[in-house]
Amino acid sequence: MENEAKKSPASRLSIGVDFGGTYVKLALVRFEERNYKIVGYSFFPTKQYSRQGLIEQLIIRIIKLKAESTFKGLRVRGVGIGVPGRVDFHRGTVLDLTNVHDWRNVSLRDELERKIKVPIFVDNDANLMAYAESKYGAAKGFKDCVCVTMGTGVGGGIIIDGKIYRGANFAAGEIGHISINKNGPTCECGSRGCVERYVGNRFILEEAVQRLRQGAKSSVRERLNGRYENLTLEMLSDAGRRKDPFALNLWNEVGVHMGVVLASVVNMLNPQVIVIGGGVANAGKLILDPMRRTIRERAFSVSCQKLQILSSKCKEKAGIIGAAALALSDRNE
Amino acid sequence: MENEAKKSPASRLSIGVDFGGTYVKLALVRFEERNYKIVGYSFFPTKQYSRQGLIEQLIIRIIKLKAESTFKGLRVRGVGIGVPGRVDFHRGTVLDLTNVHDWRNVSLRDELERKIKVPIFVDNDANLMAYAESKYGAAKGFKDCVCVTMGTGVGGGIIIDGKIYRGANFAAGEIGHISINKNGPTCECGSRGCVERYVGNRFILEEAVQRLRQGAKSSVRERLNGRYENLTLEMLSDAGRRKDPFALNLWNEVGVHMGVVLASVVNMLNPQVIVIGGGVANAGKLILDPMRRTIRERAFSVSCQKLQILSSKCKEKAGIIGAAALALSDRNE
Repeated sequence: MENEAKKSPASRLSIGVDFGGTYVKLALVRFEERNYKIVGYSFFPTKQYSRQGLIEQLIIRIIKLKAESTFKGLRVRGVGIGVPGRVDFHRGTVLDLTNVHDWRNVSLRDELERKIKVPIFVDNDANLMAYAESKYGAAKGFKDCVCVTMGTGVGGGIIIDGKIYRGANFAAGEIGHISINKNGPTCECGSRGCVERYVGNRFILEEAVQRLRQGAKSSVRERLNGRYENLTLEMLSDAGRRKDPFALNLWNEVGVHMGVVLASVVNMLNPQVIVIGGGVANAGKLILDPMRRTIRERAFSVSCQKLQILSSKCKEKAGIIGAAALALSDRNE
Repeated sequence: MENEAKKSPASRLSIGVDFGGTYVKLALVRFEERNYKIVGYSFFPTKQYSRQGLIEQLIIRIIKLKAESTFKGLRVRGVGIGVPGRVDFHRGTVLDLTNVHDWRNVSLRDELERKIKVPIFVDNDANLMAYAESKYGAAKGFKDCVCVTMGTGVGGGIIIDGKIYRGANFAAGEIGHISINKNGPTCECGSRGCVERYVGNRFILEEAVQRLRQGAKSSVRERLNGRYENLTLEMLSDAGRRKDPFALNLWNEVGVHMGVVLASVVNMLNPQVIVIGGGVANAGKLILDPMRRTIRERAFSVSCQKLQILSSKCKEKAGIIGAAALALSDRNE
């Protein structure tokens, strides 16, 4: 393997797996210098399978993608798997998963390596998204970066010195559970005023619905015709882009709340780049502008000098690309 | 130098300098395996000298300590200097200092190396305190740790993988300026609700005086006899130890506020050790108990599994020991 790497350093092949709560997606990825190309793809629904069924499906699909690569005359160097939960990266063990039933202390690496004769790497999905951005995305070329994914929850990954920072219990990066209000609303995690409690999908919608019920004026109001439960984030993004003051105000608040927490992150870690990704981030400028402004208002000016706050470049592919990239890394990282 | 290090790895000598706003302290330190001993000491007042005068004093004192070491038959390997401000560690340049006048972009390392023929290392004092704790103090043996110093301000240093984490602008570790209340009182830094605004020396005293003026009952009240401006943190610590409910409540609040911010730090960095030092920390258990309780209430339980919250072991020597230890490190760290 070392020899071959020396012979053709320009082109390397690996498989990335994005193990989500809804779908498991697999991609055969060819990396060239600092770019990547997805050359094979496959996916299957998560919820149809038991734990053992999922592992079997994974094995079948990985072997199939490996066969495709052989057909193309290239060899798969490794498989990286990103899961929505905590992973003991060094042992390749899934410790616990969110939104996927019956996955505690599963030696996923060992189970797969018994059947697939390539190195397997397992890590947390937010870590891998951050890794993708730092290697091939918005933070390419920077050695330290913080990545935030805004969706149902607010996740995060920290890259220090080009490597994933995992923490003592593989639980680092929980930016969504930094409290921005010590007396704020109770969070599912047991703390209070966690930023996720203000900017998570569900809470944005709840807040919007509450305000509409209380009589707030908005173009979405007419569109819903009293059926507030049909409100979606897309409607709010659309309304914001059409300068609907109600929606603009709501997104502004999301941006300010994220700005408050990221100002604290900047004061603590002084990163050069913060990458914002995830579904909620699709509101784009509506969130990013107030977020950037709030960070600059609140964080140390010296720490903002070189700071760049960028949108994810790998987007929905970040997890799969990060997983595939990790499969090419040194296992001791 | 390499050769000599190989010959006697057990005993190495360096000079540590703690460049404070009130005193500059210098120590000749002998390191043996994982212990240290101060074998020479010197200090002078900071405010009596101009910038150039301070540099001259530093040179004179360092040369004198070096001479002492020669007398003892040992050779000084390097000099480490901790300053209260931002330092470009790689260039050895003091970027700006707090509480010391006229120090901006001073090439301290170059100025000293011209006169003293040993390697000079310059770094931020909170970074060096953290380094001392991680190498020879409470966090000895752990590769990641977060150190917090509670005094006039709340400072911090972050050690990752045994190395000081400095950030893109050498401004990382500002734990005192993590906001615990987005709408909280305005901080000198321009942000709102920074934890320093609740637990910095001055704010503890201000809060206590305000409550006493409003009629709060306490044993310190009689001691002050109306002269509230004479209240000190020592009086409040004493009163707390004697179970004065007013003081106990005040220290409890300090501990809870620190616990709130450290729970966020734990969720973000998942460190194995947090070391608490600095003057305010002298209140000891009065602060540490509610701090520990609050962290456990608020941070992810999995991140608390291995977490240790310890008092500083190097105490007031942390800065000088960290500086001396850094002088023995690889400059590329």
